[in-house]
Amino acid sequence: MVNHQQAFDEIRAIIGDRLSQKDADRDQHGQSETWHRAPPPDAVAWPETTEEVSRILAICNRHRCPVIGWGTGTSLEGHSLATHGGLVLDMLRMDRILDIRPEDMLAVVQPGLTREALNTDLRATGLFFPIDPGANASLGGMAATRASGTMAVRYGTMRDAVLAMEVVLADGTIIRTGTRAAKSSAGYDLNALIVGSEGTLGIITELTLRLHGQPEDVAAAVCAFPTLEDAVNCVAMTMQIGIPMARIEFMDPIAMRAVNLHSGTDYPEKPHLMIEFNGSPEGVRANAEAFGDIAGECGGEGFQWAASPEDRRKLWEARHASYWATLKLRPGATGVVTDVCVPMSELPGAVSAAARDMADAGILGDIVGHVGDGNFHTLLLIEPGNEQELARAKEVANAMARRAIAVGGTVSGEHGIGIGKRALMEEQHGEAWAVMGAIKATLDPNNILNPGKLVPDRN
Amino acid sequence: MVNHQQAFDEIRAIIGDRLSQKDADRDQHGQSETWHRAPPPDAVAWPETTEEVSRILAICNRHRCPVIGWGTGTSLEGHSLATHGGLVLDMLRMDRILDIRPEDMLAVVQPGLTREALNTDLRATGLFFPIDPGANASLGGMAATRASGTMAVRYGTMRDAVLAMEVVLADGTIIRTGTRAAKSSAGYDLNALIVGSEGTLGIITELTLRLHGQPEDVAAAVCAFPTLEDAVNCVAMTMQIGIPMARIEFMDPIAMRAVNLHSGTDYPEKPHLMIEFNGSPEGVRANAEAFGDIAGECGGEGFQWAASPEDRRKLWEARHASYWATLKLRPGATGVVTDVCVPMSELPGAVSAAARDMADAGILGDIVGHVGDGNFHTLLLIEPGNEQELARAKEVANAMARRAIAVGGTVSGEHGIGIGKRALMEEQHGEAWAVMGAIKATLDPNNILNPGKLVPDRN
Ligand SMILES: Cc1cc2nc3c(=O)[nH]c(=O)nc-3n(C[C@H](O)[C@H](O)[C@H](O)COP(=O)(O)OP(=O)(O)OC[C@H]3O[C@@H](n4cnc5c(N)ncnc54)[C@H](O)[C@@H]3O)c2cc1C
Ligand SMILES: Cc1cc2nc3c(=O)[nH]c(=O)nc-3n(C[C@H](O)[C@H](O)[C@H](O)COP(=O)(O)OP(=O)(O)OC[C@H]3O[C@@H](n4cnc5c(N)ncnc54)[C@H](O)[C@@H]3O)c2cc1C
Repeated sequence: MVNHQQAFDEIRAIIGDRLSQKDADRDQHGQSETWHRAPPPDAVAWPETTEEVSRILAICNRHRCPVIGWGTGTSLEGHSLATHGGLVLDMLRMDRILDIRPEDMLAVVQPGLTREALNTDLRATGLFFPIDPGANASLGGMAATRASGTMAVRYGTMRDAVLAMEVVLADGTIIRTGTRAAKSSAGYDLNALIVGSEGTLGIITELTLRLHGQPEDVAAAVCAFPTLEDAVNCVAMTMQIGIPMARIEFMDPIAMRAVNLHSGTDYPEKPHLMIEFNGSPEGVRANAEAFGDIAGECGGEGFQWAASPEDRRKLWEARHASYWATLKLRPGATGVVTDVCVPMSELPGAVSAAARDMADAGILGDIVGHVGDGNFHTLLLIEPGNEQELARAKEVANAMARRAIAVGGTVSGEHGIGIGKRALMEEQHGEAWAVMGAIKATLDPNNILNPGKLVPDRN
Repeated sequence: MVNHQQAFDEIRAIIGDRLSQKDADRDQHGQSETWHRAPPPDAVAWPETTEEVSRILAICNRHRCPVIGWGTGTSLEGHSLATHGGLVLDMLRMDRILDIRPEDMLAVVQPGLTREALNTDLRATGLFFPIDPGANASLGGMAATRASGTMAVRYGTMRDAVLAMEVVLADGTIIRTGTRAAKSSAGYDLNALIVGSEGTLGIITELTLRLHGQPEDVAAAVCAFPTLEDAVNCVAMTMQIGIPMARIEFMDPIAMRAVNLHSGTDYPEKPHLMIEFNGSPEGVRANAEAFGDIAGECGGEGFQWAASPEDRRKLWEARHASYWATLKLRPGATGVVTDVCVPMSELPGAVSAAARDMADAGILGDIVGHVGDGNFHTLLLIEPGNEQELARAKEVANAMARRAIAVGGTVSGEHGIGIGKRALMEEQHGEAWAVMGAIKATLDPNNILNPGKLVPDRN
C-alpha cells in the first residue's frame, strides 16, 4: 500500500488536528456492522466546510490517495471500509440544518446530520422527514446508499426525497445538482446519479430534502398469521387493491422471538405483519377496516391496535430493534444481511424460497421486510471467523439474489452494493455495469473516491 | 455538411426501403411545432426491432453519421431537428404493447406507442397510465424529454413512471436500465440518467412503465378568480394545506378567450383554475369541500362542477386544446413556449412577473400551467420570420427563465432543453453542465446521438 504521508501533511496544514493518524481514530473508522473486514484507513479527517472538503479532495487527487466518505458507518455491505487504504472523510461535524422552508416543504441540511436529529428539529413545523433506515444514519450516508425504510411504501426512498445537492467531485470541483422546484427537465438527472453512488462519484456536502406534512391521524396494528405465505399474500392483496398504507412490515417467527427476548414483549412466535395507516380520521378508519377484512381472509388473527402514540412508538421501536435483537439469538455472532426486492407478484414465492434455503443450509436467521415494496431482508447468523459458515451463508444469500434477478427484481432494494454485492452486479446489469464503470472513470479518473466499491475494477 | 451516403447504403442493405432519402419524408421529419427551424435530415429510417436499431447505430457510429430519435415530433424546443444533418430514426413502427402485468401494476411497451393508445388498451384492466402531455406523444419521446402533464401533481413525471428500459448506445451496445421492482439500490441510477437525456445518450427501444389503479370516484371543476394573483395564491394555499389533488391547472384570461373561440365554450375571460379530485367517494367529497373553502377565501367564483364523465372529458379537452386555440388568436402565428418551474412559495411572484413582462413587451400570449408543481407556460405569439418579434419574445422568455433560476427553480419543468434552452444551461447548472458534457462524451465519443442539443459543444 502506498504511503500517503505527503497528502496528509498538506491536509493537516489546512485543518490541523482535525486530521488524525491515531490508531484509535483509524480503528473506529475501520469497522463494519457486519462480517465485512478490512484494515483500517491510514488517516481520518473531520472537515467542517465545503471549502475544506474541496481542498482535501484536490490534494488527495493530486497524490492518488483514496478518500472514503463516512456518515455514521451503519451501512451493511462494507461500503465505508478502506479496502485500498487512504483517508476516511468523517462528515460528522457538518451536521447543521441550514434552512427550513415550510411553505416549500423542504429543508436544506449538511450531510452529517442524522435523520432523527432532523425530525426533532422539524417537530414544531408540522412537517417531518419520512425515510427511516433501522439505524439513526446520516442524511449524507442515506443519500449515498439510496436508503429507504419502513415508510418507503408511502413516501418513496432517498431517490424521491433528495431534491438537490451540493457535491464535491474528485478533483475538488464543487457542483450543484437538482433544484428546489418539484420537477425539472433541464438536462441529465445528475441528482439521481449521485444518489446511490456510495461515495464513488463525489462527496455530498449539502442536501435539499423534500418534507411531508405530519398526518392528522395515525393508526398502527400488529397481526399474526398461520404461515409466512399467508402473511405475504395478505400484503400482495392489500397492495393490489390499492389500500394506501404508511407502513407494512413483515417479521417471521424467529424475528418475533428475538424481539420478545430483546424488548420484553410477548407476541406469539408466528409470522406477523406490522401496519400503519395515516391521513384523515375517516380515511384511516376506512383503510384499517378494509385491511382487517383482507387480513381476516388470509387467516390473520390477534389484531392488536396500538391505541396511544406511546404504544405506537413501542411497536415501531420493536421493529427497528429487530436487527440487534436477532444478532443476540446467537451470542457473539455476526451477520450476513440480504436485501432483495422483487415485483409484488413474486414476493410470496421469493420469501418462501428464502425460508426453505435457510432451513436447508441449517443457518439460524430471521426474515423481515418492507414488504409493501416487495423488499425483504434475511439476517443470517454466523460465527465470526468461521469461513465454512460464511461460505454457506453467502451461498444462501447468492441464491436469493439470483432468484430476484430471474424474476425481474434487484439484488439490493435499499442497502446498496459496497463490496458485499459487487460480484452480483454483472449478473444483474450485464453490459450496463460497464457503463457505470465508464461514468466513474470519467468523473474520477484517478479512482480516488471509494475505490474497489460498486463499479468494476479499472483495467 | 458531410455526405453520409455510405452509411445509408449499409442501412438500406438491412432494412430495405424502410430507409428513405425522399424529400417528402425528410421534410416531414424536419418540422418543429414552434419557431425552431433547421434543414431537414439527410434520411429517415423506420426500424422495427431492437436488433435493427443496434445495427443502424453501429453503422452510423462507424461513419460518424448523426442519429436523431423521433417519436411523434411534438417536442417544443427543436429537440428532434437535424441541426447537424444525418439520419432521423422514426420509432413509429415499434409501437407494440409487449406485456401488461396487472398484479405488478406495470406495462412493457415499445417506444413508438402513444400514451393514448396505451390507455385505450389498459381500459379493461382497471389500470391507467397518468402522464399526459398536451400532445398524444410517444412514450419513448416522453421518456426522452422527462415529460409530465396535468396529473404530475399526483402521480409524478416520467422520472417516476419509467421503471426500466432497454436502450441502444451509440456503438450499438444494447443495455437494460432499472428493474421491475419498486425500488433498487444496486448501482448508479442509469434509468434516471437516460430519462430526460433527449436522445443524446441512447435510443430507447423498450420501456417498463408504472401503472395506477383507476380511481373509484372523480370530480372535476372549473372556477374563476378576480385576478391572476388570487388564483395562484389559491393553488399555493391548497398545496400547503396538503389537500390531495389529481390535477390543478391555471389558465389566464387570454387562454380562456382562446378556448372559448376554439371549443365553443363561454367561460368568463378571467383567470381560472381547473381542478380534479380522485379517490373514494367520501374522500373526493371532503377534498372538494375543503378546496371550495380555500377558493372562496381567495375570491373564487362561479364554480362549475363537471357532473358527468362526458362533461369532464370536455373540460380537460378544452385545457389540452389551449395550445392550438391560443395559436389561432393570431392567424399564421408561431409560438415561443416557456416552461419554468419554481418552488411553490415563489409561484405567485413568478406568474405576476411573467404577465407584466409580456404586457410591457407588447407581446400577445397566454399563461397556463400545471401550477400544483409550480410549473407554468406562456405561449408568446410571433409572426414567422419576424426577427425583431422573435428577439423580443426571447428576451421575455429569458427573463422568466432567469427569475426561475434566481429563486431556486428550473428553466424547464417538463419540455426539456433541445436547442431552445441550451443557452441557459450554464446559468442554471454552472460546472454541472460540463459534467453532463463529460458523461455524453464518454457514452457517445463520436457525438452521433442528437448532436448540438442539451450538452455543451465538444471542443
Ligand atoms: C440495524 C440497522 C438497520 C438498518 N436498516 C436499514 C433500512 O431499513 N433501510 C436502509 O436503507 N438501510 C438500513 N440500514 C443500513 C444503513 O443504515 C444505511 O445504508 C444508511 O443509509 C447508511 O448511512 P450512514 O450515515 O451510516 O452511512 P455510512 O455507512 O457511513 O456510509 C455509507 C456509504 O455512503 C458513503 N457516504 C457517507 N457519507 C457520504 C457523503 N457525505 N458523501 C458521499 N458519500 C458518503 C460512504 O462512503 C459509504 O459508501 C440499516 C443498518 C443497520 C445497522
Ligand atoms: C400542444 C402541445 C402540448 C404539450 N403539452 C405538454 C405537457 O403538458 N407536458 C409535457 O411534458 N410536454 C408537453 N408537450 C411537449 C411534447 O409533447 C413532449 O415533449 C413529448 O414528450 C414529446 O414526445 P414525442 O414523442 O413527440 O417526442 P419527439 O418530439 O419526437 O422527440 C423528443 C426528443 O426525444 C428524443 N426521442 C424520441 N424518441 C426517442 C427514443 N425512442 N429514444 C431516445 N430518444 C428519443 C428525440 O430525439 C428528441 O430529442 C406539448 C406539446 C404540444 C405540441
